[in-house]
Amino acid sequence: MEHAPTPDQPTLNFSSDNTAGAAPAVLDALVACAAGHAAPYGADPWTARVEQRLAELFEHEVAVFIVSTGTAANSLALAALTPPWGSVLCHPGSHINNDECGAPAFYADGAKLITVDGPAAKLDPIRLRAAARAKLGDVHTTQPSAVSITQATEVGSVYTLDEIGTIGEICREANLPLHMDGARFANALVSLGCSPAEMTWRAGVDVLSFGATKNGVPGSEAVVLFDPRRAGELAFRRKRAGQLASKMRFLSAPLDAYLADDLWLRNARHANAMAQRLAAGLAGVPGVSMTGAAEANILFCRLPQPVIVGLLAAGARFYHDRWEPGVVRFVTSFATTEAEVDRLLDIARIAAHH
Amino acid sequence: MEHAPTPDQPTLNFSSDNTAGAAPAVLDALVACAAGHAAPYGADPWTARVEQRLAELFEHEVAVFIVSTGTAANSLALAALTPPWGSVLCHPGSHINNDECGAPAFYADGAKLITVDGPAAKLDPIRLRAAARAKLGDVHTTQPSAVSITQATEVGSVYTLDEIGTIGEICREANLPLHMDGARFANALVSLGCSPAEMTWRAGVDVLSFGATKNGVPGSEAVVLFDPRRAGELAFRRKRAGQLASKMRFLSAPLDAYLADDLWLRNARHANAMAQRLAAGLAGVPGVSMTGAAEANILFCRLPQPVIVGLLAAGARFYHDRWEPGVVRFVTSFATTEAEVDRLLDIARIAAHH
Amino acid sequence: MEHAPTPDQPTLNFSSDNTAGAAPAVLDALVACAAGHAAPYGADPWTARVEQRLAELFEHEVAVFIVSTGTAANSLALAALTPPWGSVLCHPGSHINNDECGAPAFYADGAKLITVDGPAAKLDPIRLRAAARAKLGDVHTTQPSAVSITQATEVGSVYTLDEIGTIGEICREANLPLHMDGARFANALVSLGCSPAEMTWRAGVDVLSFGATKNGVPGSEAVVLFDPRRAGELAFRRKRAGQLASKMRFLSAPLDAYLADDLWLRNARHANAMAQRLAAGLAGVPGVSMTGAAEANILFCRLPQPVIVGLLAAGARFYHDRWEPGVVRFVTSFATTEAEVDRLLDIARIAAHH
Amino acid sequence: MEHAPTPDQPTLNFSSDNTAGAAPAVLDALVACAAGHAAPYGADPWTARVEQRLAELFEHEVAVFIVSTGTAANSLALAALTPPWGSVLCHPGSHINNDECGAPAFYADGAKLITVDGPAAKLDPIRLRAAARAKLGDVHTTQPSAVSITQATEVGSVYTLDEIGTIGEICREANLPLHMDGARFANALVSLGCSPAEMTWRAGVDVLSFGATKNGVPGSEAVVLFDPRRAGELAFRRKRAGQLASKMRFLSAPLDAYLADDLWLRNARHANAMAQRLAAGLAGVPGVSMTGAAEANILFCRLPQPVIVGLLAAGARFYHDRWEPGVVRFVTSFATTEAEVDRLLDIARIAAHH
Repeated sequence: MEHAPTPDQPTLNFSSDNTAGAAPAVLDALVACAAGHAAPYGADPWTARVEQRLAELFEHEVAVFIVSTGTAANSLALAALTPPWGSVLCHPGSHINNDECGAPAFYADGAKLITVDGPAAKLDPIRLRAAARAKLGDVHTTQPSAVSITQATEVGSVYTLDEIGTIGEICREANLPLHMDGARFANALVSLGCSPAEMTWRAGVDVLSFGATKNGVPGSEAVVLFDPRRAGELAFRRKRAGQLASKMRFLSAPLDAYLADDLWLRNARHANAMAQRLAAGLAGVPGVSMTGAAEANILFCRLPQPVIVGLLAAGARFYHDRWEPGVVRFVTSFATTEAEVDRLLDIARIAAHH
Repeated sequence: MEHAPTPDQPTLNFSSDNTAGAAPAVLDALVACAAGHAAPYGADPWTARVEQRLAELFEHEVAVFIVSTGTAANSLALAALTPPWGSVLCHPGSHINNDECGAPAFYADGAKLITVDGPAAKLDPIRLRAAARAKLGDVHTTQPSAVSITQATEVGSVYTLDEIGTIGEICREANLPLHMDGARFANALVSLGCSPAEMTWRAGVDVLSFGATKNGVPGSEAVVLFDPRRAGELAFRRKRAGQLASKMRFLSAPLDAYLADDLWLRNARHANAMAQRLAAGLAGVPGVSMTGAAEANILFCRLPQPVIVGLLAAGARFYHDRWEPGVVRFVTSFATTEAEVDRLLDIARIAAHH
Repeated sequence: MEHAPTPDQPTLNFSSDNTAGAAPAVLDALVACAAGHAAPYGADPWTARVEQRLAELFEHEVAVFIVSTGTAANSLALAALTPPWGSVLCHPGSHINNDECGAPAFYADGAKLITVDGPAAKLDPIRLRAAARAKLGDVHTTQPSAVSITQATEVGSVYTLDEIGTIGEICREANLPLHMDGARFANALVSLGCSPAEMTWRAGVDVLSFGATKNGVPGSEAVVLFDPRRAGELAFRRKRAGQLASKMRFLSAPLDAYLADDLWLRNARHANAMAQRLAAGLAGVPGVSMTGAAEANILFCRLPQPVIVGLLAAGARFYHDRWEPGVVRFVTSFATTEAEVDRLLDIARIAAHH
Repeated sequence: MEHAPTPDQPTLNFSSDNTAGAAPAVLDALVACAAGHAAPYGADPWTARVEQRLAELFEHEVAVFIVSTGTAANSLALAALTPPWGSVLCHPGSHINNDECGAPAFYADGAKLITVDGPAAKLDPIRLRAAARAKLGDVHTTQPSAVSITQATEVGSVYTLDEIGTIGEICREANLPLHMDGARFANALVSLGCSPAEMTWRAGVDVLSFGATKNGVPGSEAVVLFDPRRAGELAFRRKRAGQLASKMRFLSAPLDAYLADDLWLRNARHANAMAQRLAAGLAGVPGVSMTGAAEANILFCRLPQPVIVGLLAAGARFYHDRWEPGVVRFVTSFATTEAEVDRLLDIARIAAHH
């Protein structure tokens, strides 16, 4: 989807938070864990520590399954919630619906995604309630079996605690488990300023894909179960999916460092602040309009064509050719610097005035 | 399967080559690649370099798919070879048959493993030839669709070039593609002293699981296709399996360093030499008998019970409770030291004489 | 979905064409075929004759796979067209999307249905063209792999030859195979008054689910391939799906009689005529409005509530509680009599005037 | 697998019990059920009556799922017992292992068959006990999840009640559900002279594939659950598999007649008696030796080559080319006549003396 940068290109890269590298403390932990022998397949001290940290963070008993990608985390989580004849209710714009090449259906042995629309890439509760009841018990139709929401969403919006609570309530009434795709969990959390517990199990979330890769880790994600009864199944499902790393410490030690000393929150706060700085600056550029609130680290806006051309010519990287003409997406990360944001803004201002 | 070592335990760990960490040069490369932005999903320079290195190493056009585990590599490879109503002919002792929790059938949408026995964990050519022809075209039975061999095998033996060639010939005659599970590819290669090309496509191998994790890499394996026509399908299969890493450079930069300056071969030579040293030493311990040739970095032998007890008491780690009483497996790795081998031998000799 | 009728209920059953029994000539053939031995699994003379009849009817080489249900026919057909990472473009109101409990995804090993809307339950060509090109080659997304249309549709409309031709053209341009769900193939054919060839391969259809059960057969459907290259795969897929009948003659002999002497066309003409008679009659009932053209044997209309109540009280059976209030579906079949239609109309008229 | 008979061929067909047609009373019931409307998808009176009959026959609450083939019955039953990472323990010679083209793995979303050998095509209890415990809880390996036995077996032997009870006991101890493939259930039952309850749930069987097609029905099989908790799942699984017949009465009315007036037992007694008559006669033919006890309606023996040639030349049909040279299989059915058996014996005697 992107071309490798040539060495002399500037790094005005706002195309995705997965173009950034890894946080130094995370890399240090990875290097440090490499010394000596360790039990494989997750029976190592780092993995145990990550589980303990997550239990403390979430103030709840958890079962944790570390995997290498967000697609694997989402798909494993959903497979544990959904029988093969079930359907997962999700937003049409969700990552599981658009960007995982059928992995949820693959992991869940053919289960179906049924989309439930709503503004700002969030599930509309009224539509959700209807979909949760559709054709229950009718053997001719896949049965609603789980609900999945994304926090923060793919367009940079963030569900409020009330909004999650309402969806959680609908799920409880319909006896459907609730999954949260938290590829940008930290960005949403610091945006809301609440606790991890409040944003998850207290609001009705049963299973979380806890993202870390986009926020400074080389490649670790975790399925976090708040209901331990599903854990036995997931252990086999993870192995069967080729997602049980033999040298697991290389996935868990980075996560351990990520969770230590609030690094994960600091990284997310920084990324969000950079998006805010960018949004504030762009608001002052003639002809620019925001197309959604930048509540996390993603910003959608409409740019005049000369500004797009000027930015690209200056080496800036961002997605601009996937939606209506003029619509542009900027993504910031822990690695985005104020200088980069300011330079981008400078270029935009100049291009807008030509 | 194993317990985490307590901090003060000695590291006489011969239980598996996946208890070792990572080679220093590999870690250096991983840290170095983390700086700056890089295109995600494998569109980065390190991934391109790995592909180029492998093409040069194998003296052949290749398509390369980097994944995070050996189970994923094997299963992806087989899925590209086998229709859902097909069967893969493999040894009853193979990793795909025993140690992947059904992943090959999962990835290959229900395809079956049919076992073909043979001594030293190698496929017997006569049995293979019969199995390759069994019930061809009979719609009532899964159809032989691929053959899989493991090099080096799970018992530490190594197929000779002639043996691979014979199997390759049987496959060609039966029009079946040949897969090699090369989780310990390097150990086998240096054991034979041949070229990568000789041990693969020149002998009839179509798809290789090129292992690196057991030989000094944190967690990178590669599916190597010698037939580029299967590449398009594998790109989608990898993504669908949740095995397309977003920050792929963290898997490919370590592989790049692993392949540079013959590190992979040096690591394997060292591991094999340690196994030889161990075998030679054990041969002199009273009551010890080898149960197979240690042609790579795995050694199976029969130990007197007091020797097993003495080794365990001294903190040595190895598998001893999975086969007949007295049968023991030792595995060496790039990280095994001469001092560790010698210390293990000292303990064994003392225990044998008590 | 329905309750069994009590013995004394009148048979004003317009709920579905699958509540009718079987045509007498078809039953005669079934009984006649039972005498003596016959080779199992489709190697019998009746199966061969069905294949020959279909080849003649369609004026084209065909491969035929007889199965026991329409769901199996559709799912087998699609599985042969779609890789597990593919998507089938279909109407949101299609049977494969709503009424097969995920069978297409099951048979196609996880492939996805992507809906393309359009009026009268037909695919809109402009939307189809866009969907056929969406994200081609993007490894993150399931790939458009086949198009499926239903003829006649679930709302009783019939694609014109031009409409099928346009869709066929879009498929050809996009290199996508075209599947036709012909559960009511005969009803559509006599509605258009064209030849089977014109309505299928000449218009671009590659694979047809040739329905017979709804039109007078106990339980036989056929997948008809116009491209014989897919036949080998389907033979294994049918067996793997548990759809290869051992005493196949009991499925094929009824089909043979169904195709003989134009019985299939006569049955369909009768069913369509009954729907026309019903539509004409209802048009004269005060307060009734048609909500779609009854081009085959299904009629959707809006009835005043007293008419619905009156019909139900008189023992008439039809669906009325699945859509907006007042919307009603009547289905006729080969077994519907003029007297039944007229009696229903009488009841409706009386109820409308009370 | 077989060629269609030419019209003038004699019907000395002993190749399989699926070459016979259907019993007259069964056909009468099929024709009779065709009159009038009936609720589809199993909500008809015949289906209800079959359920009631089976509950009475088995003296137990049952849930019944009628399907069109034995492969579907077995695969559905196993899918309800086995998670995708599970394995089904079965005999290497079982139909599910050899003759269903991977259908059990397909229906069970990739689950594995693990073979447990034993004489006379029966599971050896000692081996079964070991296999039931193998690697329990080891995440690297598919987990023993169900046991499947065939009654009568594929070689014509019949498990005694004690043998089934022992296997049932092993299953109970290991907490594994027990499936019985009863494609020839009636033949086994009359061979043992016990009640259906004794041969199933009283001996530990949880799920039964109740065969009828081989014993005089056109094409109906039933999954019989003795544990109603699995019923909800099977309803969806059957539909998803394309095995929920719309005009279900055409499968259930024949079953109803099959179960009435002991027809099913009479048919089986006759078939078994014909096998006994054949066995007794062949025992007197010079050079013939039995290779197994003909306890049901299948007979394996060794014939001199001239006898095989003579029988084939006279138009007799039987399998003779699938095992060691000289080994032959004869299968009798409800339709086999004494005259046919005697004629076969005459031909064999004459051929043996030439």
